[in-house]
Amino acid sequence: MSLNTFGHLFRVTTWGESHGPALGATVDGCPPGIEVDEAMLQHWLDRRKPGQSKYTTQRREADAVRILSGTYEGQTTGTPIQLMIENTDQRSKDYSEIAEKFRPGHADITYWQKYGIRDPRGGGRSSARETAARVAAGGVARAALNVLAPDVRITGYMVQMGRLRADRDRFDLDEIGRNPFWCPDAASAAIWAEHLDELRKSGNSVGAVIEVRASGTPAGLGAPVYGKLDTDLAAAMMSINAVKGAEIGAGMAAAELTGVENADEIYMGSDGKPRYSSNHAGGILGGISTGQDIVVRFAVKPTSSILTPRKTITVSGEEAEIVTKGRHDPCVGIRAVPVGEAMMACVLLDHLLLHRGQIGSAGGRIG
Amino acid sequence: MSLNTFGHLFRVTTWGESHGPALGATVDGCPPGIEVDEAMLQHWLDRRKPGQSKYTTQRREADAVRILSGTYEGQTTGTPIQLMIENTDQRSKDYSEIAEKFRPGHADITYWQKYGIRDPRGGGRSSARETAARVAAGGVARAALNVLAPDVRITGYMVQMGRLRADRDRFDLDEIGRNPFWCPDAASAAIWAEHLDELRKSGNSVGAVIEVRASGTPAGLGAPVYGKLDTDLAAAMMSINAVKGAEIGAGMAAAELTGVENADEIYMGSDGKPRYSSNHAGGILGGISTGQDIVVRFAVKPTSSILTPRKTITVSGEEAEIVTKGRHDPCVGIRAVPVGEAMMACVLLDHLLLHRGQIGSAGGRIG
Amino acid sequence: MSLNTFGHLFRVTTWGESHGPALGATVDGCPPGIEVDEAMLQHWLDRRKPGQSKYTTQRREADAVRILSGTYEGQTTGTPIQLMIENTDQRSKDYSEIAEKFRPGHADITYWQKYGIRDPRGGGRSSARETAARVAAGGVARAALNVLAPDVRITGYMVQMGRLRADRDRFDLDEIGRNPFWCPDAASAAIWAEHLDELRKSGNSVGAVIEVRASGTPAGLGAPVYGKLDTDLAAAMMSINAVKGAEIGAGMAAAELTGVENADEIYMGSDGKPRYSSNHAGGILGGISTGQDIVVRFAVKPTSSILTPRKTITVSGEEAEIVTKGRHDPCVGIRAVPVGEAMMACVLLDHLLLHRGQIGSAGGRIG
Amino acid sequence: MSLNTFGHLFRVTTWGESHGPALGATVDGCPPGIEVDEAMLQHWLDRRKPGQSKYTTQRREADAVRILSGTYEGQTTGTPIQLMIENTDQRSKDYSEIAEKFRPGHADITYWQKYGIRDPRGGGRSSARETAARVAAGGVARAALNVLAPDVRITGYMVQMGRLRADRDRFDLDEIGRNPFWCPDAASAAIWAEHLDELRKSGNSVGAVIEVRASGTPAGLGAPVYGKLDTDLAAAMMSINAVKGAEIGAGMAAAELTGVENADEIYMGSDGKPRYSSNHAGGILGGISTGQDIVVRFAVKPTSSILTPRKTITVSGEEAEIVTKGRHDPCVGIRAVPVGEAMMACVLLDHLLLHRGQIGSAGGRIG
Repeated sequence: MSLNTFGHLFRVTTWGESHGPALGATVDGCPPGIEVDEAMLQHWLDRRKPGQSKYTTQRREADAVRILSGTYEGQTTGTPIQLMIENTDQRSKDYSEIAEKFRPGHADITYWQKYGIRDPRGGGRSSARETAARVAAGGVARAALNVLAPDVRITGYMVQMGRLRADRDRFDLDEIGRNPFWCPDAASAAIWAEHLDELRKSGNSVGAVIEVRASGTPAGLGAPVYGKLDTDLAAAMMSINAVKGAEIGAGMAAAELTGVENADEIYMGSDGKPRYSSNHAGGILGGISTGQDIVVRFAVKPTSSILTPRKTITVSGEEAEIVTKGRHDPCVGIRAVPVGEAMMACVLLDHLLLHRGQIGSAGGRIG
Repeated sequence: MSLNTFGHLFRVTTWGESHGPALGATVDGCPPGIEVDEAMLQHWLDRRKPGQSKYTTQRREADAVRILSGTYEGQTTGTPIQLMIENTDQRSKDYSEIAEKFRPGHADITYWQKYGIRDPRGGGRSSARETAARVAAGGVARAALNVLAPDVRITGYMVQMGRLRADRDRFDLDEIGRNPFWCPDAASAAIWAEHLDELRKSGNSVGAVIEVRASGTPAGLGAPVYGKLDTDLAAAMMSINAVKGAEIGAGMAAAELTGVENADEIYMGSDGKPRYSSNHAGGILGGISTGQDIVVRFAVKPTSSILTPRKTITVSGEEAEIVTKGRHDPCVGIRAVPVGEAMMACVLLDHLLLHRGQIGSAGGRIG
Repeated sequence: MSLNTFGHLFRVTTWGESHGPALGATVDGCPPGIEVDEAMLQHWLDRRKPGQSKYTTQRREADAVRILSGTYEGQTTGTPIQLMIENTDQRSKDYSEIAEKFRPGHADITYWQKYGIRDPRGGGRSSARETAARVAAGGVARAALNVLAPDVRITGYMVQMGRLRADRDRFDLDEIGRNPFWCPDAASAAIWAEHLDELRKSGNSVGAVIEVRASGTPAGLGAPVYGKLDTDLAAAMMSINAVKGAEIGAGMAAAELTGVENADEIYMGSDGKPRYSSNHAGGILGGISTGQDIVVRFAVKPTSSILTPRKTITVSGEEAEIVTKGRHDPCVGIRAVPVGEAMMACVLLDHLLLHRGQIGSAGGRIG
Repeated sequence: MSLNTFGHLFRVTTWGESHGPALGATVDGCPPGIEVDEAMLQHWLDRRKPGQSKYTTQRREADAVRILSGTYEGQTTGTPIQLMIENTDQRSKDYSEIAEKFRPGHADITYWQKYGIRDPRGGGRSSARETAARVAAGGVARAALNVLAPDVRITGYMVQMGRLRADRDRFDLDEIGRNPFWCPDAASAAIWAEHLDELRKSGNSVGAVIEVRASGTPAGLGAPVYGKLDTDLAAAMMSINAVKGAEIGAGMAAAELTGVENADEIYMGSDGKPRYSSNHAGGILGGISTGQDIVVRFAVKPTSSILTPRKTITVSGEEAEIVTKGRHDPCVGIRAVPVGEAMMACVLLDHLLLHRGQIGSAGGRIG
């Protein structure tokens, strides 16, 4: 019921506004005895940090995370972990125009319609800054996964910018860290750079598709019928701001398949575990993990804060035109990559804990 | 935490297996004083009922719903509403093959891996029969919406079968009830009929995309950051069996848009309410409804129970081949239309109740 | 948020009215592979069943429970378990007086004030019949505990009727089943019988205190700060109708103790486990079980449906007098004994599952 | 499921350890537009602050609360409110003895048994300092109640210290603020002062009973069967550390009453609202408020950190003796008074929001 909370047993509540004193995450339900320190979380935050290339907002935030509770001598104690990131670059900007006019495509108008009050400074709670708290919490989840499911590897990357799709035949995971787009296809990254430069200069922005993959996931995570692993993954991704679609495995394209194509055939691996001829399922059948790679994709819409003038209305109901200046991401999807990874880590840990609680080691063996 | 429950304040827990004595839904949180009777719910169930055309399973189920609690003299009392549908056509079939071999693309194997036990009769809990309970619960939600938000109209329809997309220029909502596919484009419906006939005869099946639209929705429903209306809608649709993707408004295609294209411009309507030049947002900005039509789409994968032989393994780990005989839907997406409508009704009512609780009538006015 | 649901991972939602077609419990979160059948649950229901002595309501209900879902070949499958008890003795009584006048001390008036509608037949949802569903659900919890924590023994008994307290020096647990009051002190049981006869004949009723004890409970169940084992036990007991107080260990009398008296001293047992000189803590410190007996007590107020006339008002606001005829328990506390046991079983199983989920086997060892 | 969270719609998650950098409360679900600032919350915190008389711990904490999020220009915005209290007086004490030996009657041993790790400094999470965060959150709840239910008045006071009960015939609410015990009976306060002096000097401590009363509460708050107002109040009080019992209205003594005595007779007030001849119900019938004063009491056990030596064991399993020096409350019940008030405020606001959500203004009228 906490509308700012995500998770069943591993629960993350994010709090904070873009230009308030601080923002952060209250993490409840982390098992005890997990090594977690600030440096470890900072590693993940630094990947999301703004201002790392000309393709992300130039706001300068250290995004330094502090652990205020829940650890003792570098280990989690089983009590709530409070992660705080102070806002340091709250530039003394004039927000009167945003306070007065609603940006089309932005949450400005709906916050107003719902609450009758909103913090207009930098978008307040609806700012992408909120996702810094998710990344910090995801760092805790990764630390726990390292102990409880050490084979799990989570990798996020961009597979599409605007209409330009990366080429899966050229995918090389080592490329992901070598370009500003987290793109596993070097050739596409070069083309995207050019494309985004043009858009940025013309005061426009563009959408993107992110894919997050988790290998080494145990079979048996998730549960019918509403607590499905894919339900929770879709919800996790859809809860990231600017996301408009989420899909598992073949995803929306599953509609185009026939039953013969879609039914990933099953073999026995030499290790006595099932193997599959393909992974249209994205590693999930009936809401429960198969042991194959978990594959989720989500679409991020283009940033709505753009330099091109758009028609809008004011709080007092007058028609107007708005141009949003300031330090905005031309493709906010770029920074969504580490966020998607963090959400994947949180969901997997959560379902791992649920599985241990409700099932123990009792799952069925094959063979 | 109830993994078989959906909703925050209006909570639906479905229960029951395909071939057990009965299945149903426990509905908690319905406001009192709402007129609800069995005939009203039956109306919606009859739309989902199997055996209505040659394109759906030939299982004969009356799907007659009984209200066991929560109403008095035809009105809800505020106490839990128990809806029960008895299973009558549990044909004395031999399920030993399904008990022994896992159907590729089906939850058979993951239930086994998770629980070490499963009810193999007709898929047990993973059967599409579970969705009958959702439709019944959705009928309660619709009855409450009729009183609390009488302008809301929920309409579901199929927009794609396999690679064949309906043509939006030919959409006529009156067509929806005139063909077995809930298709608003009569020409497409005719083509789909032919296509599905072929697939069915060849022992194959096919996927589909369903769109559900809610007009007349008040602005202000939903909440940042995790209890977003779009998060809950995506989760609701993804929780339906065989669904692999869910999207809002422009959806996955939002990635292809520029910021200029995506930012639905805002005007003042003659009634003093905001109007928009377009609806890429699908009626939701920042997780909160704008007052435009809420538009959600989801992809249903093809039925995995097909007559074409597929390679698989047995419970004892031997490689095998499986052919699934029996009464299966060649395009299970067809019957997902009323289910998607039901989920939309449940989510909207839930967020309406949440909004009333947390906000009251305090929302901001424009102008 | 389900206001008719209890539990975190082992979740019980009860539904149904006293004089509707049926009532029951939807049990979600029971681990798979647990042997559960109707006979096993019936055993516990028969202990709560009305009409077993002249000291309980003479309503004749078989209280026969049916399992509608969640088991296959006598074992739980991990899916929701639906337990239904049909109401058979809905005597065609005239409820017009109760529909018109509010019984003092009864929920009649508050249901009306809250909902504006209520099912007056036998108290509707506020009837003690609701507790039959709890006892059935408690039977499932006991079955799971038998497998997961086989040393746990749960025993409930009455320790006080009106002002008459049983004498702890005379306690003999074998006596509990030998008298109609579940009293471990045979001498008190005899006195209570006489006392209750008098009260019943004079058209009056009386309160009681029930104690429920769980031995063999593992240390480490529960969690600070709000999910405390004692918080959940107090809530569980307080949720039973007519209960006005709940206490753990020394309970309200802990206020009278000094720190020296209250601090149960700790020794090492010969088995390497801690032993305590006393159990003022009632087996719980800081919200977490110590391994000692868990001891909870709760007070049940006297039945408000009595033959003695009481002043009241009518629905239309007129002052009136009411006499409640019919088949009412003179001491509803008697039948609360099996209910308290059931709640204890549900809470212990729930916290056992939580503990396994969040902690695994990682708890600290002493020595 | 958040085990450190309390509430349904108004949700409070407390975090932090006694000697960590800070502690606080994440408050989610507060309606927007409520005036809340730090000074307002500080007012309530100052009442709980340690070191205000010789009868509470001499630890010097400013308990200065900072609002890190969720308000804008002095008003709540509907987003999560983060309240942080920095720990300033973390005296560089040697905690090695407490780290090694378990204090009898304290959570030391169960934290160890559960988690295998604990922060021994000042009790870590199990310290009474955690309640400062509750008081801060309660301040937010009071601010919201002031707007949504302005007639509500919440008053807590001590009614018993050890075996010494205050005399209800001498109660004068104006006395509460005039003595260090929040006692409404000046004569008892004087006797308690003497009694506690003696106990403190002898290295002992003592328990207490607190009563919290809410007048002006609307009828209709609460819900059958598990979300009862009394269930939530009992849970709220039982969740405070050191509490061993909670009761509503007549409470445990309801067991001693007959039905005739217990059934508070009903009259019509001159304002057209029901009036009652007595309040054995404590303002709650069937889990729902009647409109009478809500009355809850809870027992606080004596502090377990005492100067008198007690037998115990060490982490390594050796028998030992422990004497707890340091700055401990001889009657921790004293500082529980503002905490009980805070919990009452949180529960009432939560149920007010629930009631508005699920029922709206539809409740039944009498007359």
